[in-house]
Amino acid sequence: MWSVPTREVAPIAHGGDLGGLRKAFPDAPEPWLDLSTGINPVPYPVPPVEASAWTRLPEAAELGALRAAAAAAYGAPDAAHVVPAPGTQILIETLPRLMAPTRVAVLGPTYAEHAAAWARAGHAVTEIRNLDALGEARVAVIVDPNNPDGRTLPLAERRALAAALGKRGGLLIADEAFADLEPVESLCPHAAPGLVVLRSFGKTYGLAGLRLGFAVADPGTAARIAEALGPWAVSGPALAIGRAALSDAGWRAQAAAARSADAARLDRMIARGGGRIVGGTSLFRTADFSDGPDLYRRLAAAGIAVRRFADRPERLRFGLPAGKAAWCRLSRVLR
Amino acid sequence: MWSVPTREVAPIAHGGDLGGLRKAFPDAPEPWLDLSTGINPVPYPVPPVEASAWTRLPEAAELGALRAAAAAAYGAPDAAHVVPAPGTQILIETLPRLMAPTRVAVLGPTYAEHAAAWARAGHAVTEIRNLDALGEARVAVIVDPNNPDGRTLPLAERRALAAALGKRGGLLIADEAFADLEPVESLCPHAAPGLVVLRSFGKTYGLAGLRLGFAVADPGTAARIAEALGPWAVSGPALAIGRAALSDAGWRAQAAAARSADAARLDRMIARGGGRIVGGTSLFRTADFSDGPDLYRRLAAAGIAVRRFADRPERLRFGLPAGKAAWCRLSRVLR
Repeated sequence: MWSVPTREVAPIAHGGDLGGLRKAFPDAPEPWLDLSTGINPVPYPVPPVEASAWTRLPEAAELGALRAAAAAAYGAPDAAHVVPAPGTQILIETLPRLMAPTRVAVLGPTYAEHAAAWARAGHAVTEIRNLDALGEARVAVIVDPNNPDGRTLPLAERRALAAALGKRGGLLIADEAFADLEPVESLCPHAAPGLVVLRSFGKTYGLAGLRLGFAVADPGTAARIAEALGPWAVSGPALAIGRAALSDAGWRAQAAAARSADAARLDRMIARGGGRIVGGTSLFRTADFSDGPDLYRRLAAAGIAVRRFADRPERLRFGLPAGKAAWCRLSRVLR
Repeated sequence: MWSVPTREVAPIAHGGDLGGLRKAFPDAPEPWLDLSTGINPVPYPVPPVEASAWTRLPEAAELGALRAAAAAAYGAPDAAHVVPAPGTQILIETLPRLMAPTRVAVLGPTYAEHAAAWARAGHAVTEIRNLDALGEARVAVIVDPNNPDGRTLPLAERRALAAALGKRGGLLIADEAFADLEPVESLCPHAAPGLVVLRSFGKTYGLAGLRLGFAVADPGTAARIAEALGPWAVSGPALAIGRAALSDAGWRAQAAAARSADAARLDRMIARGGGRIVGGTSLFRTADFSDGPDLYRRLAAAGIAVRRFADRPERLRFGLPAGKAAWCRLSRVLR
């Protein structure tokens, strides 16, 4: 019955779920310090939510206001280029199902859900290490800045890639989940057929539970994606809170400065702990350790969750601590 | 590029969005009384939402607890049969994209998004008026109780339909969006391969802005649908509020009794206003009027929005008023 081609894809490990760690380290002190994600630990202050945001169906005018606020924040040409979604993850799942099976190249290593989603939808996926290996791919996926190493390609190179794929009737998916607080140039102002940019709301604003994310694309493509999500994909509270936060450029500038300072502090702490910084963004730092697996266990025994990588045991990714107690707790293990 | 077969489908009118009516009737008294939807006007009291529900990624254990509460509320065999989604609408959009194009029969007239979603995904859709006309269809869609006329088929007939479609490798989609407060027998306890039941949360609990809905299916199909939505499709607040509400059988019983009494009162008011009741559920009543278009305009001029139907100008659908002032306001036009 479920006859669209599909491939079994092994489950992907993610940060942010402490259930397994709690079981594996039952003696670790509670509450855990969760540094396993790249979510801003200092959230945007949630404004009071009107009762009607819960009770009514979200209205078209509210959706339009959120789209306009997102277009302004991301530098997209206008609201018609913006598709709000209940998180970018559902966009990552949906985009591959809107296309007939084709050749897809993912610039890796990167966030594993991209390759998995394209494979599940029956596409032929290869992970490439640089763009010279693009070959005959009609779809390319880049995460920029990249998770977990922070790699970013020059804007001209990304634009040329989008143009080249567009010319062959293909598509560039540029996941800019971690771009908001970074000094990187976004593709959003350069929306054109053959390019879909993804932007995450929850990471930047520390509101991952709200479920809000965006696709930025030319208006025709944006309409197609919006149609696949249906008319009320985003909750009333997310419409209201998202609009307020995206309109608050002052908060964003302050968050970028504060998290950048945090990231530098974390780098110093990691170096003191014997780590060699591989890269990252203002919201996470990735480092290699000669004793990676052992350090992972020592952190967990101290109730600190970080992200590890099955195929690179020496590598750990650290989210940012928030507050003096959290910094001290991490420092005690990394000294 | 967007090469999955698709068909252009005309936009579908929905209740719940007063923007257009406000423009067409600028002199109507504010605030409008919105009776254009089938949403419970007396919402479940939203419990306080913990800050972490907004800030953290929803955890697997929280999702599991919601699935268990939904399984118990809907009479599904267990949590493995339940897929939470950010509203049933996104399930209606997603299911057609998980199947290669086939023949689909929708038992109509009914909620228009079903046929539209299957058509957009490239399936051959016919609207049938009774199940004898099923023909060679591999997928059938029924809304039971039906929107807008409340029609419901005997459980044995629905089970036989699911079995017959399952035998030919097909699928029955049974949309039970309005079943919660009705004295109807659900297909949820009879989950089996070849059957997907949809349940709406927002209508019953008066929390349409929360975006929460469910698919109930055999565990294999449920896993397939969950995979298509990704790991964090439902927001943290929806997980917490949904779990609390679905576990509250007392509230549900009280709501069923109160809304049923409201529906009877609304029927009397409609009859007094010259309407012939066609049917409905405890959350909406549908009636034919000799002066349908004129009554629609008189209601709108009085700031009351109801649902009309492009192909049946005599027909109007009324949601339930809540509170004395709202009942009086409707009564003044319907006398």
